[in-house]
Amino acid sequence: MIELLLVGIGTGNPEHLTLQAIRGLNSADLVLIPRKGSDKADLADLRRSICAEVVTNSATRVVEFDLPRRDRTVADYRRGVDDWHDAIAKVWSDTIRSELPDGGSVAFLVWGDPTLYDSTLRIASRLEPAPRVRVIPGITSIHALAASHAIPLTDIGAPFLVTTGRLLRDAGWPAGVDTLVVMLDGDCAFQHLDPAGVVIWWGAYVGMAEEITLSGPLAESAPRIIQARAEAREAMGWIMDVYVLRRTGG
Amino acid sequence: MIELLLVGIGTGNPEHLTLQAIRGLNSADLVLIPRKGSDKADLADLRRSICAEVVTNSATRVVEFDLPRRDRTVADYRRGVDDWHDAIAKVWSDTIRSELPDGGSVAFLVWGDPTLYDSTLRIASRLEPAPRVRVIPGITSIHALAASHAIPLTDIGAPFLVTTGRLLRDAGWPAGVDTLVVMLDGDCAFQHLDPAGVVIWWGAYVGMAEEITLSGPLAESAPRIIQARAEAREAMGWIMDVYVLRRTGG
Repeated sequence: MIELLLVGIGTGNPEHLTLQAIRGLNSADLVLIPRKGSDKADLADLRRSICAEVVTNSATRVVEFDLPRRDRTVADYRRGVDDWHDAIAKVWSDTIRSELPDGGSVAFLVWGDPTLYDSTLRIASRLEPAPRVRVIPGITSIHALAASHAIPLTDIGAPFLVTTGRLLRDAGWPAGVDTLVVMLDGDCAFQHLDPAGVVIWWGAYVGMAEEITLSGPLAESAPRIIQARAEAREAMGWIMDVYVLRRTGG
Repeated sequence: MIELLLVGIGTGNPEHLTLQAIRGLNSADLVLIPRKGSDKADLADLRRSICAEVVTNSATRVVEFDLPRRDRTVADYRRGVDDWHDAIAKVWSDTIRSELPDGGSVAFLVWGDPTLYDSTLRIASRLEPAPRVRVIPGITSIHALAASHAIPLTDIGAPFLVTTGRLLRDAGWPAGVDTLVVMLDGDCAFQHLDPAGVVIWWGAYVGMAEEITLSGPLAESAPRIIQARAEAREAMGWIMDVYVLRRTGG
């Protein structure tokens, strides 16, 4: 029997780790660290350094393995992701079987929180035989962003929508909600909105030493953010960003 | 000069504390614990025990103070909350002034995360003179709930709306979104929805030793949840719950 422990580690600040996460990692027989070749966005270094720092149980082994790559030539986005998850599940199964032939517990360090725009739970559901899955929640980039700006996510009793750059670009501002949290935006979808009355709080690498934050009325902030984002991406070789948009008087 | 440190402590599991939260509390000159008379939902005991456990800096003083009560006879809900926040800000100011006459840093332990349906930032903005505010993000009940159920909050690339029981009851299922996270629901607003095709993942006291979770198709689950909630509330004297609703084939 395999127990799979998905441990939210927060957004790159090693101090985002909870006591529960640290205890979880130290309870595992095996901690698996995925590598994506030379891709810095795999954050393998961060996972390695977290393990070096907090895994104190000498019975816990930390093992790295190579992830397959997503086939970006598949036209259907969902289908491409689906096939890729199948391929990852196979590598997980093979690695777990060879490292834990008699069963045991295996932990993954999941960026942010395992339940928020993360594929780990979906991949886990494809494993055979099905493992017992336990999730340890982590600090998300949503809350790391709001903390950095020291802003409430909502007005009193008001809702907010967590959405993607793709949806915002394709469908515009959704009805019935004045606060949006936008994730997975490779393309600065905010630039296509009517900026009147809209304020943005943006951040890249939130929680990490490299964190950049910018905020202000969307009209003035959009060009500054687009430029800062392009420069940071160029300098770092990758970028992960998130933002809150709030419409007032709408 | 006063530095105000708002420390997210997660949802009642002392192991939800992050290393950053622990360091933050130990960096403060003063940690303030609010009391609401005999109201168990003030969770003063939890805050006391967290401080006893993790505050190891002998220079950090932990001080309790009494919160004013909200005047529930004010008909206008927002106005009532507004007046109450003013009254709390005054008590904070007086307490901080008398405890830290020469300035310094004061920390509050905020349930969940300080940016999510929490009034602490709004109260802080009413302090005079204005303090420097720093926020340390915490595990929210949203992520603690999803972790307990080991479910992804969303389908691939899909949005979700975080809303309140009041809004769900008054306005029904909002357009354009198939996943809702419902908070601040004193009245089981899910019971007024058409349950066809809807699944619910519910939890009370998520993260705490008393945690209860239930899930399933809404039609069958709603009466079970209503009953479990009433019994738990009766037994504990208070309740805090949260749930995810997902509509399929809608």
